[in-house]
Order: sequence, then structure tokens, then C-alpha cells
Amino acid sequence: MGNILLKNIVCKGAVSDIYIEGNRISKVVPAGTSISDGYEWEVTDCSGKTVMPGFVNMHTHAAMSMMRGVGEDIAFHDWIDRIWDVESKIDEEYVYQATKVACLEMIKTGTTTFNDHYWHMPMAHKAAIEMGLRPVLAYVICDRNDPEESERQKVECRQMYEEAMTWNDRSVFAIAIHAIYSVREEMIVWASRFAREHGLKVHIHVSETQKEIKDCMEQHNGMSPVEYLDSLGVLGPDVIAAHTLWLSDNDVRILGERGVTCVHNVNSNLKLASGYMFRYNELRDAGANICLGTDGCASSNNLDMLETMKTSAMIQKAWREDPSAMPLDELVAMATANAGKALGLEIGKIEEDALADLLIIDTQNYNFLSPGSFEANLVYSAHSDCIDSVICDGEFVMRERVVPGEKEILAQAQKVLNKII
Amino acid sequence: MGNILLKNIVCKGAVSDIYIEGNRISKVVPAGTSISDGYEWEVTDCSGKTVMPGFVNMHTHAAMSMMRGVGEDIAFHDWIDRIWDVESKIDEEYVYQATKVACLEMIKTGTTTFNDHYWHMPMAHKAAIEMGLRPVLAYVICDRNDPEESERQKVECRQMYEEAMTWNDRSVFAIAIHAIYSVREEMIVWASRFAREHGLKVHIHVSETQKEIKDCMEQHNGMSPVEYLDSLGVLGPDVIAAHTLWLSDNDVRILGERGVTCVHNVNSNLKLASGYMFRYNELRDAGANICLGTDGCASSNNLDMLETMKTSAMIQKAWREDPSAMPLDELVAMATANAGKALGLEIGKIEEDALADLLIIDTQNYNFLSPGSFEANLVYSAHSDCIDSVICDGEFVMRERVVPGEKEILAQAQKVLNKII
Repeated sequence: MGNILLKNIVCKGAVSDIYIEGNRISKVVPAGTSISDGYEWEVTDCSGKTVMPGFVNMHTHAAMSMMRGVGEDIAFHDWIDRIWDVESKIDEEYVYQATKVACLEMIKTGTTTFNDHYWHMPMAHKAAIEMGLRPVLAYVICDRNDPEESERQKVECRQMYEEAMTWNDRSVFAIAIHAIYSVREEMIVWASRFAREHGLKVHIHVSETQKEIKDCMEQHNGMSPVEYLDSLGVLGPDVIAAHTLWLSDNDVRILGERGVTCVHNVNSNLKLASGYMFRYNELRDAGANICLGTDGCASSNNLDMLETMKTSAMIQKAWREDPSAMPLDELVAMATANAGKALGLEIGKIEEDALADLLIIDTQNYNFLSPGSFEANLVYSAHSDCIDSVICDGEFVMRERVVPGEKEILAQAQKVLNKII
Repeated sequence: MGNILLKNIVCKGAVSDIYIEGNRISKVVPAGTSISDGYEWEVTDCSGKTVMPGFVNMHTHAAMSMMRGVGEDIAFHDWIDRIWDVESKIDEEYVYQATKVACLEMIKTGTTTFNDHYWHMPMAHKAAIEMGLRPVLAYVICDRNDPEESERQKVECRQMYEEAMTWNDRSVFAIAIHAIYSVREEMIVWASRFAREHGLKVHIHVSETQKEIKDCMEQHNGMSPVEYLDSLGVLGPDVIAAHTLWLSDNDVRILGERGVTCVHNVNSNLKLASGYMFRYNELRDAGANICLGTDGCASSNNLDMLETMKTSAMIQKAWREDPSAMPLDELVAMATANAGKALGLEIGKIEEDALADLLIIDTQNYNFLSPGSFEANLVYSAHSDCIDSVICDGEFVMRERVVPGEKEILAQAQKVLNKII
């Protein structure tokens, strides 16, 4: 990590100089302000560009990056059969290479932190660290209601925790509970307690489909998945609940009171026809923390947070019949600052002492040629190719759209893909 | 127009050589086939790339390209006030420059033909021809229920028709009837007859909002806008109806029986909260021809047909609760071949004697690194930056993402924009 100076960059509307010392922002000052600190600065002239925090993808399965398009225009049960067929063939090397491809895509589309949920986590960790991103990697509890598997996973989970204690500072270890329908009750409680004992976040799929709600109510005395998890004492501000799509008023109240982070995965929900009426206004007003995710490429086909932001807002406006629904400032916060809050990290904001996870956006193009605000043009008009450069943890991971080693990453990934198709 | 040879390009799954003579495709043969014709060919090696027809944007207002972001997160009546405020200040020079910006965006996002609906049409025509695109430009009838204005527009319409007869072969002249609520009945009938007498297409906004339906039924003996237009004898295969969002079963039947082209503008409909339940399956099954459009940048914020394709399919799948809704082959046809049919042009297909309006797609990137089909990866994973080069009417209008004169176009447009803000 060097000492980086971004000169003449627009920051919150003002042309500024941003100083990055090590992995943190040290100063944000009006452009041209004289600073005498005796340091050597690596200067990048950012005239005509705007800075914003890196995006945080709060729910994904990174290693599914090479499963995009595997099942299109088919019913859910046929789709999941195809995915399982592919997953039955993958190994550690596949996860390593596929996570590198995912990181490449995330860098090119402006994501600096991702909250991952997949198998062979040490390989995903290796890939993310090599690519320079900030990963949140969960050990996935998924016993498929087999008590022997529960015991095996308890042992493995403890081992992973020990291993994670040796990781790079940049990585965050978490516990994933796959879902209420795939994990035994005793194991849900164990995982939740293990996480709390060790100060770890819990990442769980909750209330994604109508079937999940119906099955849960039948099996648990009429309780919804949210009510059931709350009855087990699982829900709290340490919980990151992916989807939370089918919610009753009582579910909304509980998620708000417990301060749960709800992650909206709009593209996955639309494409798999899971639903679209995410109760954004109600969750926000109840006090839940709301973030955005892409889900894995098998269901949403890319990891593009800017696309996710646009689609999320468009759908809210449409079904609520209210063009003011999910306004831009809240939308940007969902993709940045709210995630920092959820993860307890100093990310998603540009201020002194925050971690230096930044996007440099090129606004010298037709998408920004209008009287509209930067945020409006970024979210509603532009695509991720306006992201000129990306800094994560104080280091450039992309400069002028070039990610080091891109060709080699694709070539290596093609080799492991060829083995399974 | 030269003689272009695209070598080693994937066409409909087979590695091919494509010969373009003048403005038409002359041969599509397996790569390496020896052709002895005595011509000099300008050869482009397209290894690792795939060809497809250029997109056709069947409903837009190109010169609104610099109004993106003008009104965000506000109610419709506040939004329209802001747009009218901007429109009150624009002149011919503005329309010329703004249409050039729109053409630049269309080229970069793969649109080769656009069906435009705006004022100062001769300036839009000049811009589109200079940029090398294939424009369909309508004289817009919009008398706002003022009989004097009707008469003025009849005269001007005839003049425009005469002028259009002198245009470049590439341009198509059409008649736009703004909408049933903004044009007097007598004038709707006049415009429709004028179009039929001269073999012109009619471009009209139909059934965009619930208010339009309600007002029409109150004013026209309970008839919907579709029923009302049909009662006037307007509807037929020469009609391109934009939006057709709020339709009764009887409306669907009429549109199908008359062979009307219905243009779905999903992003505009979502963003303005007009609605989202476009009756795609029903219209298709009734026999209507269905195409896609972006609408103007003031309402949908960009002119990206690939984004429009993805969002259209995602929304259908979601509200129909059917992941197989709007399948990929139909989606691609809506953006290409169906538009050729609507306009009576040999575009939207790759075959001998078709007009050479082609996209060269770079598939050597992460979006296409999967066992998914080309179409799946293009629509659901990629963005328009995978479009490497664009050919319109037998000429390259973009090569390797470079459009000649891009910087100068933006600089000139900035000048006219500065005058009105």
C-alpha cells in the first residue's frame, strides 16, 4: 500500500484532492490545497472524474460465476436440477478459478466488498485476496436435516474459524445458515450461538419464495420463517437476511425491532419469478437496515450492482405506482453506507479515517451530459463501463478499465470449465 | 460503401465469412470458403466474435438525450412541468446536437435503426444521416385540440412529405399522431388517411396510462383508446402503437386482428410508474406484432436496447410468476426481426440480400464464459460494452468501440445545453 493522492476529483459536488495513507483515507481537501507532510505521494490526476464509495454486494455466491445461462426460460425445478448437475462436478480448483472470475467482474463493475455464501471457502478466500478485494466469507451450515452431517459441520466450522483467525486483516469470517428448510433447528440455534460467542455475522436466506412460507407455517405451528427464527432467538443486528421478499406486517415489525439487515436481490427474484413486491418502505420505516445484493450468476446472471440499483428502484416505483419510491439517496446508501453499518466496517463512505474503497467514475460521456445529478445519471443512465478505476483497501485494483492479469484469469477459468461441460 | 468481408465470425452458431457488397449482405459462407469474384474486399478478422442484427429502437424521442435526470423521484405532474420548462427553450440547433448525442449513444449500444417522434424533424434527419444510422422520422401531428393549429400542421405535414421525398434512401418518413388526447378526431382521421394515401407508417402513443383509458371512456361513449381508434378506421398493419400497456381483452383482440405493431417501453413504464403488466403473451397469441423501444431519455434515461430486452423479460417472468415467460428467441426477435416486419425493411436478420445492419459482439470476456447460449449471456449477463463494432447500411459506424468524432459531438452538445440551463 502506497500513499495515493487523487487530484482534482469531484467529491460530494466539490473539486477535491483526496489523500490515501496505507489503506485509509487521510484527508479530503479542496483541490490545490497545499499540504506539507514530507510524504511521497503517487499522484493520479482525476480531472473530469467523480469519486464515490465502492459498492458492497451483500448477498452473492461468487463461484457460480461460470453458471450464468445454464438454465434459461425453464421452470424453477428444472433450473435447480441443472444447477445441481453442474455443482456435483465442481471441486476446490473450480471454486478458486470461478471466484477469480467473479472478482474480476466485481472489480469491473465497481464492487469492492462482497458477502459470499458458498462451498470451499478457503479457495474463495485465496482468490479474493489475490484479486485485492475485501471479502466476507461464511462457513455454510447446511446439514439437509441429517444429524451426522450437523456434527461434521460443527467440527469443520470450528476449524474454519481457527483458520480464519490467521487471515489477512482485510477478510471477514462469518457464519452462514443456509435456510430454515435445509438446516435442523438444533443446528440453527448452535450456529447462531457460535456466531454470537465469536462476534461473527450470520448470513441466511429468509422468506425467498411463497413455498418457503407455506412449508414453514405447516411445520412450525403457523409461524412464518421470520417468526420461527425469532422464536429461536436468532434475529438481531448481527443477522444479514437475504431476500426477505414475502413478509407479513408482523414479519416487518420483527425485522425492524431486531435491527436485522435485509438484503434485496431484485434480479434473482424477478428472473426466477420468486416475486417483486419487496416491502422496502415498510422495512425502512420499521427500522430494518436495507442493503442490495446480486445473488449468484446462476440466478441473476451477473454481479453488477449498478444494474441492481436501477432495477430495484424501477420495480418499487412501478408496483407502488409512485415515481418517488426508493429515491436516489437511499438507493446509493443501500449499495454503500448501509452495508458498512451491517458489517461493522468503515466502508461505504468517503471521510477521513474511513477505509479507502473507492470508485473513480468517468463523467466525460453522454450518460452524464445533462442537467441531472451525478447520482441520477450514474444509476439510471450509465452502465458499469463508466467506472474508470477502482481502489480497494488503499490499492488500485483497476486503472482505466484494466485489471492486471485479466486474460490469464479467463484462460485458467476456461480450463476448469471445460472439465465439467 | 465499400465491399466488406467479416472473416471467421460466429453467425448462428457457425464460424463464417460474411460478405457485404454496398449496403447489403451478399454472402454468408463457412469460414475459409474460397470465393473468386474479382472484387477487392476490406477484410476484418472477427475471430472470437459473434455477429447479430443491429437493434431497432421502435419508439424513442431522440432529441431528449440531454434531458436525462431532469426530474427524478418526483410525481408525474412535477416531472412533466420540468420537461416542458426545458422544451420551451429548445430550438433547431438543440435538436440537431441532441440527436447527434442520441445517435452516438445508439451506436455504442448497438441500435442501427430508430423510430423517432420529435419536433424539428429535418434537424434530426441531418444528425442521423451524418452519424450513419437508419432513421425513421415522423412528422408529429399534435394540435392540442386547436382547429387553427390542425390546419397549419396539415400544410406543414405536406411540405415535410415533399421534402422527405428528396431524402437519402436510408431514411424513412412516417406520420406521428401524438395521442388521442392531444389531437382532434378530425385530424386523427386526416393524418391516418394521409399516411395510407402515401404508403407511410403511423406512429402513435396508445393506452400508456390508466388516466388515458379513463378519460377516453368518459369522452367516447365508454370506448377504450384502442376501440376509439378502431372506430375511426385508424388501426391496421401500418400502425406502430407505442406503449399499449393498459389493454382489455377486447383491445388485445382488436390489436391482433388488425395486425398492429405494439411497442413495449418497459423502462419508461416502470420509471414513471405507468404500469408493468404488459400483456405480451396475449398480444402475441392474438396476432399482434410486438417490438421494443426505450422511449426518450427524459423518462427512461438511456437508449440501451440490451437493457430494455433484459428488463422486459425479467418483469414478464415476475408478474406472471413464470420463469419461462418471454423466452430469449422471442425477445431477440422483438428487438430485431419483428421491427423489420413492422417497418417493411429488410433489416433485423442475417441472410443474403438483407440490408447490412450488423453488430459484432466480443465474446472473449467473463460475460460469455459459461455453458449458456450466446443469447442468454448477451441479454442477461452482458452490457452494451460487449458490442465491439457496428455496421449500418454497409458501413462501419463504430470500430472497436470508437465512433469517429465522439469528443467533438459531446463538446458541441455541451454548448447548446449550456444555453438552456
